[in-house]
Amino acid sequence: MPQARVQRIATAAPDDVSGLMALIAKNEVNPSSILAILGKTEGNGCVNDFTRAFPVVSLKQALSAHLNPEQAGQVACVMSGGTEGALSPHILVLERVEAEGVGPALALGRCISADILPEDIGTATQIDVVADGVRAAMDQAGITSPGDVHFVQIKCPLLTAERIAEASSRGHATATTDTLKSMGLSRGASALGVALAIDELDRATILRARIGFDTGPWSSRASTSAGVELMGHEIVVMGMSDSWSGNLAIDQAVMADGIDIEPVREALHRLGIAATGQLISSEQTRLVALLAKAEPGTTGQLRGRRPPCWTTAISAPRATPAPL
Amino acid sequence: MPQARVQRIATAAPDDVSGLMALIAKNEVNPSSILAILGKTEGNGCVNDFTRAFPVVSLKQALSAHLNPEQAGQVACVMSGGTEGALSPHILVLERVEAEGVGPALALGRCISADILPEDIGTATQIDVVADGVRAAMDQAGITSPGDVHFVQIKCPLLTAERIAEASSRGHATATTDTLKSMGLSRGASALGVALAIDELDRATILRARIGFDTGPWSSRASTSAGVELMGHEIVVMGMSDSWSGNLAIDQAVMADGIDIEPVREALHRLGIAATGQLISSEQTRLVALLAKAEPGTTGQLRGRRPPCWTTAISAPRATPAPL
Amino acid sequence: MPQARVQRIATAAPDDVSGLMALIAKNEVNPSSILAILGKTEGNGCVNDFTRAFPVVSLKQALSAHLNPEQAGQVACVMSGGTEGALSPHILVLERVEAEGVGPALALGRCISADILPEDIGTATQIDVVADGVRAAMDQAGITSPGDVHFVQIKCPLLTAERIAEASSRGHATATTDTLKSMGLSRGASALGVALAIDELDRATILRARIGFDTGPWSSRASTSAGVELMGHEIVVMGMSDSWSGNLAIDQAVMADGIDIEPVREALHRLGIAATGQLISSEQTRLVALLAKAEPGTTGQLRGRRPPCWTTAISAPRATPAPL
Amino acid sequence: MPQARVQRIATAAPDDVSGLMALIAKNEVNPSSILAILGKTEGNGCVNDFTRAFPVVSLKQALSAHLNPEQAGQVACVMSGGTEGALSPHILVLERVEAEGVGPALALGRCISADILPEDIGTATQIDVVADGVRAAMDQAGITSPGDVHFVQIKCPLLTAERIAEASSRGHATATTDTLKSMGLSRGASALGVALAIDELDRATILRARIGFDTGPWSSRASTSAGVELMGHEIVVMGMSDSWSGNLAIDQAVMADGIDIEPVREALHRLGIAATGQLISSEQTRLVALLAKAEPGTTGQLRGRRPPCWTTAISAPRATPAPL
Repeated sequence: MPQARVQRIATAAPDDVSGLMALIAKNEVNPSSILAILGKTEGNGCVNDFTRAFPVVSLKQALSAHLNPEQAGQVACVMSGGTEGALSPHILVLERVEAEGVGPALALGRCISADILPEDIGTATQIDVVADGVRAAMDQAGITSPGDVHFVQIKCPLLTAERIAEASSRGHATATTDTLKSMGLSRGASALGVALAIDELDRATILRARIGFDTGPWSSRASTSAGVELMGHEIVVMGMSDSWSGNLAIDQAVMADGIDIEPVREALHRLGIAATGQLISSEQTRLVALLAKAEPGTTGQLRGRRPPCWTTAISAPRATPAPL
Repeated sequence: MPQARVQRIATAAPDDVSGLMALIAKNEVNPSSILAILGKTEGNGCVNDFTRAFPVVSLKQALSAHLNPEQAGQVACVMSGGTEGALSPHILVLERVEAEGVGPALALGRCISADILPEDIGTATQIDVVADGVRAAMDQAGITSPGDVHFVQIKCPLLTAERIAEASSRGHATATTDTLKSMGLSRGASALGVALAIDELDRATILRARIGFDTGPWSSRASTSAGVELMGHEIVVMGMSDSWSGNLAIDQAVMADGIDIEPVREALHRLGIAATGQLISSEQTRLVALLAKAEPGTTGQLRGRRPPCWTTAISAPRATPAPL
Repeated sequence: MPQARVQRIATAAPDDVSGLMALIAKNEVNPSSILAILGKTEGNGCVNDFTRAFPVVSLKQALSAHLNPEQAGQVACVMSGGTEGALSPHILVLERVEAEGVGPALALGRCISADILPEDIGTATQIDVVADGVRAAMDQAGITSPGDVHFVQIKCPLLTAERIAEASSRGHATATTDTLKSMGLSRGASALGVALAIDELDRATILRARIGFDTGPWSSRASTSAGVELMGHEIVVMGMSDSWSGNLAIDQAVMADGIDIEPVREALHRLGIAATGQLISSEQTRLVALLAKAEPGTTGQLRGRRPPCWTTAISAPRATPAPL
Repeated sequence: MPQARVQRIATAAPDDVSGLMALIAKNEVNPSSILAILGKTEGNGCVNDFTRAFPVVSLKQALSAHLNPEQAGQVACVMSGGTEGALSPHILVLERVEAEGVGPALALGRCISADILPEDIGTATQIDVVADGVRAAMDQAGITSPGDVHFVQIKCPLLTAERIAEASSRGHATATTDTLKSMGLSRGASALGVALAIDELDRATILRARIGFDTGPWSSRASTSAGVELMGHEIVVMGMSDSWSGNLAIDQAVMADGIDIEPVREALHRLGIAATGQLISSEQTRLVALLAKAEPGTTGQLRGRRPPCWTTAISAPRATPAPL
């Protein structure tokens, strides 16, 4: 019976793989069971943050001592920069192992979609490719009800000058010729793909949405980032399944703004953690991982006040109140 | 019977005095009752943060339409930069008014100490001058028990090249010739002066302490900052007194580290605010002001982990986890 | 016979007016002769840089001891933040005095235009108002040939939510409802007004230009900035005039990119400064002031290379190569 | 006859090795001839700048396709972060090839010193080890006169908590227990080792110097940086030798302060580049590489003025005027 194993490993530097290697040496991580590695790194989270690419290279190289190139290539490595504040750099290693037990429990699924064409980025084609990929990952995870999906992490492609030129040479225009803007379009289409797969939005609503303009249609469970290194999608689905066993469970919440903590506390309640105030020691042990995704609002205001994260010389995503 | 009035006023810019002027126009603030104005401004909180001096000039100038120069000069204006994150720039206007009512209640006292000599900065002489000033402010506030003092804000002097030379010309050495270091010595001596006045430490312990070196002796109620514009001390005492009336009360807590929220929740409990989770709407209304003072620890670690606020390109005080 | 007097005064802080006050005390500056004060301040040059407003308040307050409010109000004070690198904070005090001598020489003119309406910002109306103001300042400066104008500094208005609403209440739409964008539109219209006044562009070309979109039409002599504190324009014209005397002269140059030093050296040559390499001591004395205006290009490239000022966490204008 | 070959290769990202790989594919670089790769990367140059480690890993990995591990390990890779401003990220590939020709010409030598013990860091022992290494590299480069050495790049070790503990367990104290401070001590001892090897200072003067305190004794040709990855020293010597051939030459200059350009122009003169003003196109082609090393002075002043690089929120080394 499948079981999810999740290890949270502190890192001493972006390329520090020693913690993971030690767990492998102690048989507490099995390299061939790893579906994905998610990381929070100590860079600034801006365009010039190379603490995202560096650990990916380092992890793939370290894993190549244990896996063949094809296997190593399939491990989804998604890094997010920005631990200024109280966060401490770490990685999460997500494994699918076999063990006896009872469900329901946390279930994991991964899908690497086929490559799309440059002209597909930010279009209905990409939405469908992602939706299919999410469904495949749900199948792998044994999740039958869309409501049991709680988090979908996607790394999606972006446009480069070369890719735009290549499409153009075949007579096809891309959705934008602005490479930076293509990142947003690809992330938006990917998020709508998640919403489609898990029935958050109906297909008609999604197809009407102008990607990158309309802020109405959205997904409460998608976390998407664009990377130059792929033309397909790395999709990781996390949810609850009766066919998985073990003592891990997952839930999710949506914050109304950057200091809206109550929905998070309610999600912890639902998971059996009292969270009356700061987590007490025994509760902290039970919380294996917390994945959060936020960005500053667009109104320049927070509950009628103006936290100056929009005007400070530190870019807004760095200066914005963190969700926890 | 004296009563404290505290107004929290959002500011649209460091020199925005319109909110205060509007309250004066509506007779909700009486200029001649103002003891002190404390502010949180939107600068970076570093050496080159001029959002502290700018509002002081602006407030003094605005008040000079209502007060004579001597009165305006006595209003203690203490500004602190750094609202990156969730804080929103604002000022607190502290007044002593007369009103009927019952105590105990929040009581305020202010004392402007006599000037000290440059060679006194960072010495036992400064400690005694501050302790005397705190006692005078306690008297003014009608606070008889040191345990009823909950917060003491002090602006203290620092050394400049001119002041060091002037002392030297009289044959006196200053505690340091490093002007930056003199800020720390002055703040340290001032904090020890508070500790002496409110019996947190005995005199012998304080006199043994090497100011600027020993981190052992400390005050749980002092908040001190050094400014170039004075050679005396602006001292504001806040506490509880039976001889003051009104519905405001004050309490305080010490956090063990930058994410230690529980002592804060306990202080709120003692004030009658449940604080089970984030403050609910009715509790938010009752909380008039929160004053917090923190800086990153010196171990490079936080509960065994390493939040990289010490190594990021943003200076540590900006990147450190905020107390609330 | 009019003569321009220009004093360059180092400042120890944004609100340091002591240097100017000392020159006034020594009769080396006559307050009622001051046309304008231009300053370079030590803030970050970004939206939250209050080292621009602070010196303006401080200078006006200091001058009010010597001038009546109307006179003080007419002194054009234009501050620019950003001295990270080799620049040192300073102000330039520009006076028109009477003295015997021969021309041609540096000539100064100032004009405060009438207020415009919110709906005029960024339109042909504003262009004409500015062009008229520049011509009036040229008249005051005794400059008859447009080719003798070398630098025009303009402070122009911007839109606020209140101004947009006020225009709307009268049934008029503003050029934009985005207040940040209005700064660019106002600066653009003002620069085109300069180009019109000094015959850099013909009226038809200017009226065809879509302000804020077309980057083709430009002025080689305009330096414009938008400020919230006015609805008119503060215009300072600098050029050469036969009817002014003294030993000061002015010239100007346009750099092709951020490291294009040769045009600057050629301008210095024309002024009689050899500038074969770095200025030698005697040449440095002769150079009273240098006004430069630049921003990073929009191609992400500099002579085929990519200085990463566009991707670094420091905003591009701060990280961009400075003109000198 | 040995000949130096130097390639300057633009990089599109810290891990971009494509330019070097392309030159190898075209036989314009021979991997087994590479002595060293020096790089300027686009990070912030501060403690958390991982754009230094990332290219080293990437280059070693790319070269391992052409070299055996021992050879690849001997290529000295020295990266320096910080291209904010006009610099563009690039690497310099230094090769020793065989070719006919006449000398004197640029000559290169490399030496990897033996490991030292933790307790040797910052001591006379380290000075001697480095001096021996520099002499060995001079021998390899065929440089017989110390005056012909123009640049010595050294990567030296630093202390970690583990290394300090290991020395302590053997009963030896290290020069400091502050790991950050050990970087300065190691760099200082290494620079003095260079000064000793090339007769800039006599041995008695060097031994009297308190490393890390005295700023008197210094080397005009050493450029040293400390790295955690080694306990020995990577030493690269560049100079002129009669026994090397080719059309490359090297010279050096010392700037008196951060804007002292004239010594640089004089060095260019000596190399036959007129440099009357900015380099003209044909001169730019002849300049293959420029290595500069600087940091802000300690007086807070530059030629009597105060460029605020010491007080800005950007750390001083980032905000300091760059040498070229």
